[in-house]
Amino acid sequence: MAMTLSRRATRRVCIGEIAVGGGAPISVQTMTKTHTRDAAATLAQIEACAQLGCDLVRLAVPTADDARALGEIVPRSPLPVIADIHYDYRLALAALEAGVQGLRLNPGNLRGKEQIELIAREAGARGVPIRVGVNVGSLPHELRDRVKSGALSVAEAMVESALGEIRLLEAVGFTQIKVSLKASDVATTIEAYRLLAPRCDYPFHVGVTEAGPDVRGVVKSAMGIGVLLFEGLVDTLRVSLTADPTEEVRVGRLILQAAGLTSDMPDLISCPTCGRLEVDLRPVAAEVDRFLQRIRKPLKVAVMGCSVNGPGEAREADVGLAAGKGYALIFRRGKVVRRVAEPEMLEAIKKEIVQEAEAGGER
Amino acid sequence: MAMTLSRRATRRVCIGEIAVGGGAPISVQTMTKTHTRDAAATLAQIEACAQLGCDLVRLAVPTADDARALGEIVPRSPLPVIADIHYDYRLALAALEAGVQGLRLNPGNLRGKEQIELIAREAGARGVPIRVGVNVGSLPHELRDRVKSGALSVAEAMVESALGEIRLLEAVGFTQIKVSLKASDVATTIEAYRLLAPRCDYPFHVGVTEAGPDVRGVVKSAMGIGVLLFEGLVDTLRVSLTADPTEEVRVGRLILQAAGLTSDMPDLISCPTCGRLEVDLRPVAAEVDRFLQRIRKPLKVAVMGCSVNGPGEAREADVGLAAGKGYALIFRRGKVVRRVAEPEMLEAIKKEIVQEAEAGGER
Repeated sequence: MAMTLSRRATRRVCIGEIAVGGGAPISVQTMTKTHTRDAAATLAQIEACAQLGCDLVRLAVPTADDARALGEIVPRSPLPVIADIHYDYRLALAALEAGVQGLRLNPGNLRGKEQIELIAREAGARGVPIRVGVNVGSLPHELRDRVKSGALSVAEAMVESALGEIRLLEAVGFTQIKVSLKASDVATTIEAYRLLAPRCDYPFHVGVTEAGPDVRGVVKSAMGIGVLLFEGLVDTLRVSLTADPTEEVRVGRLILQAAGLTSDMPDLISCPTCGRLEVDLRPVAAEVDRFLQRIRKPLKVAVMGCSVNGPGEAREADVGLAAGKGYALIFRRGKVVRRVAEPEMLEAIKKEIVQEAEAGGER
Repeated sequence: MAMTLSRRATRRVCIGEIAVGGGAPISVQTMTKTHTRDAAATLAQIEACAQLGCDLVRLAVPTADDARALGEIVPRSPLPVIADIHYDYRLALAALEAGVQGLRLNPGNLRGKEQIELIAREAGARGVPIRVGVNVGSLPHELRDRVKSGALSVAEAMVESALGEIRLLEAVGFTQIKVSLKASDVATTIEAYRLLAPRCDYPFHVGVTEAGPDVRGVVKSAMGIGVLLFEGLVDTLRVSLTADPTEEVRVGRLILQAAGLTSDMPDLISCPTCGRLEVDLRPVAAEVDRFLQRIRKPLKVAVMGCSVNGPGEAREADVGLAAGKGYALIFRRGKVVRRVAEPEMLEAIKKEIVQEAEAGGER
């Protein structure tokens, strides 16, 4: 990677074994979409996310039943668990007692300083950080009014809201803080984090909220998180999709990978297929993409069908395929190792990928 | 949109009626994936792309048969046509005679100054710009060697290659130029455009090449194009996916939209669904997403299932849905207009969307 990311200097907090900020690797998190009180279903979802490389998981805790289930979930979870809590300090206390490693909780939603002090003391005693999570959909009325009157931009209001929440925690001596500033539009999200960056040194949890279903959500998240990632403002990230959490993890990891920040993911480049193409390449590229999800090595794989750019790209990859009319050349580390007929090209490249992955460390 | 984009100052070229650079709106282009010599199939693909809001279309012209088909395609195409040509100057001449509005052609691939002069004269006489398209997979050997020796980074080599191609055209007095610098990795792509930006004032065609299939390609494209878009370096863009060109257009338009640069697309925000959810929201969000593809108004639509952020987001939208247990509130411009039972919520929000779209201009 030609570019090195210079990251914003922040304090470091630890959520279980996962450090966030202070130069720690950027972690990927998601949120389960089960009812937390269904401990078995929740654990199954956490397990699936962990297998895809997720680092942290957040669980909604809206009721006492959900809080009780944490006692069963936390000890069995392969990932540190963050409890997402609103309004009710007793749920936060119950979550802490259940052993969660992180809280997401806005002290402004609690009833007064006494409750905040209590939570801060209990969280502090356990080394549990609190994320102050400002969301454009739940800004306080007072700030909403100042936006309406034109006194503040939406991003400025989000920053004011975050600083207010931070001050409430600092006032009771609590500084194990992460901050998020989520808007559902990309430009506001970017602007908010940029504005807050020079005003505190707490690590940033970054995401575009309610980004939407399918491709729409992937585009918004990749742009919003991507821009901030290249500006060094991301300490932990969450892709928020109207989809399975495993999909959020996959997209989050792909975003990190596209910024050159993963060390255990294969990359696939494949040609867009055009009028120069002489073979049916799309199913091959799609199948290689699926196949690579099982490989945990930073291989570069190219599946190309074009005589203009194909051989060049295939040669630069660890494993490459360059298709011509009815045949394909298979490359390993820049050299043609086989020439196969079209029907055999998928199996041929898979075989080379497996061999290259096994040999991977030795290069 | 709170942020305004300050764009790099460039010359302007025109591809038919579509201006590129010099402050013109950022255009979306794609490439057909048919054999161009199959004029009917190619026209059908162009038509489908035009209906999704594509501005420009590029066709591969690898043979004389493909060039001949341009005579049939160009007069019937709803979009300006760019011919993609390599090596053979006679194909470029044939494309110009067929009336194409743009060429993509690297003069370094032609045989000597005489051929370059001929193409430049014919293109110039017709007001047809030429895109110099540098692709990391087809860098000249000499530059490739300088990368290998460590004298140049890949991005620097791409920039040198582009400047060399530009000089060949300038040497014969041709300056109706666009430039692209495509790498298959995001960081190199970003670096290359950043490096070239201060070294010429030709407009930029931006994309991440061979980005791959499915979500992987969407992530890379949204990040690469997105970062450059927010830096003001994009004049026209192409999302390159191992997929249908219509999908490339859709993603390209979503990228522009996410940067706040479209005026005719509805936006959808929908909640990621979590353990707080009491209704089955995903099919509703997916169906609303599909439904909105037919609407050409800049509506903001929210489909929310969460009692924490839902009402706030739904209230801020032009049309909103906030679901509770077994029911949903439907919002229009910040006011609850209906309360419907869960099975009716999809039809209810669709109806409000149609009404709002019809009333749209009057707000």
